Amino acid sequence: MKLYHSGASPNSRRVRIFLTEKGLSIPLIAVDLGKGEQHSDAYRVINPRRVVPTLVLEDGTAIGEVPAICRYIEEVHPTPPLLGETAKEKAMVAMWERRAELEGFSAVMDAIRNAAPGLKSRAIAGPHNYEQIPELIERGKLRVRNFFADFDDRLREAPFVAGERFSVADIVTLVTLDFATKAINFPVPDEHRSLKVWYDAVSSRPSMAA
Amino acid sequence: MKLYHSGASPNSRRVRIFLTEKGLSIPLIAVDLGKGEQHSDAYRVINPRRVVPTLVLEDGTAIGEVPAICRYIEEVHPTPPLLGETAKEKAMVAMWERRAELEGFSAVMDAIRNAAPGLKSRAIAGPHNYEQIPELIERGKLRVRNFFADFDDRLREAPFVAGERFSVADIVTLVTLDFATKAINFPVPDEHRSLKVWYDAVSSRPSMAA
Repeated sequence: MKLYHSGASPNSRRVRIFLTEKGLSIPLIAVDLGKGEQHSDAYRVINPRRVVPTLVLEDGTAIGEVPAICRYIEEVHPTPPLLGETAKEKAMVAMWERRAELEGFSAVMDAIRNAAPGLKSRAIAGPHNYEQIPELIERGKLRVRNFFADFDDRLREAPFVAGERFSVADIVTLVTLDFATKAINFPVPDEHRSLKVWYDAVSSRPSMAA
Repeated sequence: MKLYHSGASPNSRRVRIFLTEKGLSIPLIAVDLGKGEQHSDAYRVINPRRVVPTLVLEDGTAIGEVPAICRYIEEVHPTPPLLGETAKEKAMVAMWERRAELEGFSAVMDAIRNAAPGLKSRAIAGPHNYEQIPELIERGKLRVRNFFADFDDRLREAPFVAGERFSVADIVTLVTLDFATKAINFPVPDEHRSLKVWYDAVSSRPSMAA
């Protein structure tokens, strides 16, 4: 298998970290988003949604959407488990991964895409054009603040986002925090002590350089 | 296990259909959203996000978020498989379930929640208040139109949303179409023949009455 990705794309980073945690090294093919390569005819055949990342299997099957890519990798390389082992763990990981995505990741994305001068008519990634809505910048930032507070509460009661051990829910949360710091200058506030302790611990994993 | 749900909630319906397709009948406990019962102290202990549905296990574990609930049920009741059987199928189901959610379901939700007079300051479900943004009504409707067209294309090439057989991706797509018809008066346009043929076939499954 091989991964179409972009070095600057936080969704691509989620998969790169996941692969590294699995101890896997696969061919990475860079898609230059700055040059609009995701809209090229060649890439549209691979991913009609024109977004990165895409995992392409030996038989040519193209898998888009980060949780779907991680599901495939987990199935074919189950060790170490990153989506949970028991039925209950799998459910808790799925729940927290989704919460981090919808409450955190998508909020940062909204705040950026509705603001960037270079993304006029491109407020949502994908094949269709959508005009920016400036009110979504402030709503996005408010959502990020609430996400920080809610996940700080969560990490006061558990060492990792989904419970007792490291999982894909930690990966998406870490990528969201780094993305918020870099793209909208929202580092984790000092008062969120549990979130900061967790962030420092998870950031130091070698996979996070991926 | 038992399910906290609401009869009128499309997210609850997704789980009810899933259970019915599995041949499972579990206790359903109604949460009256009209009366704001999701914000009661009793329910907030069960689901701090104050949304339905929530699956509660024998040991008291509460699972929120529809894909996490379905993941749990699939693990403990694998037959018939609704999340795919092979690694590749599992990935395709995860990809198409997510696309239906993000491109369809959430677009209908945006169009409703940013418009309804009864939802002022409640534009996003959950524990935090967010003001409505009227521009999201039109953006939501445009996204729904694009979703119809894209899924019509998809169903021209495959009998079911995720491929050769019925899966949870069909459930979320069906619920989205019914929700769009009922809540924003957007039935599937006649020109989307493949989507309509699929809709008629899937609608006739007994589980869809759930």
